[in-house]
Amino acid sequence: MDTIALVPNNSLITETPEEGRQLAVKLARLIVKLTQPDEEKRKQLREVYGNDAMMLIAIGQTVATEFATIAAANNYWKELGNE
Amino acid sequence: MDTIALVPNNSLITETPEEGRQLAVKLARLIVKLTQPDEEKRKQLREVYGNDAMMLIAIGQTVATEFATIAAANNYWKELGNE
Amino acid sequence: MDTIALVPNNSLITETPEEGRQLAVKLARLIVKLTQPDEEKRKQLREVYGNDAMMLIAIGQTVATEFATIAAANNYWKELGNE
Amino acid sequence: MDTIALVPNNSLITETPEEGRQLAVKLARLIVKLTQPDEEKRKQLREVYGNDAMMLIAIGQTVATEFATIAAANNYWKELGNE
Amino acid sequence: MDTIALVPNNSLITETPEEGRQLAVKLARLIVKLTQPDEEKRKQLREVYGNDAMMLIAIGQTVATEFATIAAANNYWKELGNE
Amino acid sequence: MDTIALVPNNSLITETPEEGRQLAVKLARLIVKLTQPDEEKRKQLREVYGNDAMMLIAIGQTVATEFATIAAANNYWKELGNE
Repeated sequence: MDTIALVPNNSLITETPEEGRQLAVKLARLIVKLTQPDEEKRKQLREVYGNDAMMLIAIGQTVATEFATIAAANNYWKELGNE
Repeated sequence: MDTIALVPNNSLITETPEEGRQLAVKLARLIVKLTQPDEEKRKQLREVYGNDAMMLIAIGQTVATEFATIAAANNYWKELGNE
Repeated sequence: MDTIALVPNNSLITETPEEGRQLAVKLARLIVKLTQPDEEKRKQLREVYGNDAMMLIAIGQTVATEFATIAAANNYWKELGNE
Repeated sequence: MDTIALVPNNSLITETPEEGRQLAVKLARLIVKLTQPDEEKRKQLREVYGNDAMMLIAIGQTVATEFATIAAANNYWKELGNE
Repeated sequence: MDTIALVPNNSLITETPEEGRQLAVKLARLIVKLTQPDEEKRKQLREVYGNDAMMLIAIGQTVATEFATIAAANNYWKELGNE
Repeated sequence: MDTIALVPNNSLITETPEEGRQLAVKLARLIVKLTQPDEEKRKQLREVYGNDAMMLIAIGQTVATEFATIAAANNYWKELGNE
């Protein structure tokens, strides 16, 4: 049941914040896919949460948490002389 | 479907905490936009959450999480001799 | 629409933990204000969440998240020899 | 309205993890008190959340977040040679 | 009312990740116990959340947050040369 | 009641991000198992949350939090010269 890849390219490292953000979205979606492997059902559920204000906010919360990890893994893309 | 930019200017670095906070709000909104690309529907949903106390609180939670990452990326705007 | 100041004094640095906590509360409230600019509606919503146990808990969660960032920015007000 | 003290003793530093945990509980409760200053209403709300499984879990989440900050401020009570 | 011990052994330090995880569960449960001291009521509430999918997920979220603190306090059990 | 192993192999260290992600999923599931030890009931609950959009999002949030800890424990798999 857990045989889908959960981390694309098996790495948290990205070139840019934009790519890091896209990775955060993918990580979040892959957990949904792992939990509900049926594509047809996921499609129906997307219809549900795309039209529900509270769920849209909750998706944002999950992506924000994934992104925090990715951003730290990339040392926030090293633009500051953080030490 | 993922072709909108998710990180404005492709950077987490801002001049000030105020700009960092504005970026946090934008990051949160762009995930909503990615998940519900239809502008008309988003407008309706905004009406919903702008008048729902629990949703307003939840939006605050999401922005707080995004801001935590941005603030760390900027080394909290370095006003203390942290090191 | 985003023209209110989101970070009072444009700084996360405070003299004391108490002031840091007050700042956390303000940051959280300013996101509510940004999302629902109508003062009359916010007043009605305050009445709602002030009398709803779950919402009071959720407000606490949001303030706790904001405070985590502020406390880190202030190096936890430096009372320990952290380094 | 914000005139109650939000951080007892104006410090995050405690002698022990146990005291740190008690402080986390107090910080969480003081935000509830700030948001709903009426003691009688708070008493009624306590009756509500003390008997609601989901609210008890949510209180745990808020305390956990406050405690994370306090524990870091105390450098996790310095029992390990972390560096 | 706050006279129960909130941190077993008054320490976050454990020998192993497994013991750290057990401590995270205990910390979460002790907040429930503090908030609802009546054992009979807690027993009824356990029956509720043990059979409610959303509450089981929420419990997992709380334990995850407690564990994050404990794991950091133990320097993630020092298996890596983290520097 | 707490006699199941909560951390497989009693370690947070994994070879790769992919394995770290799988561990995050396992940690989250083991808390569900600890809280609801009856396999038949868990099976019914899985049916519930696999078809509920909000619960799928909440599962993602919990896994994201577990993963944050695991990723930090592995120093984000050391691909960057972070220091």
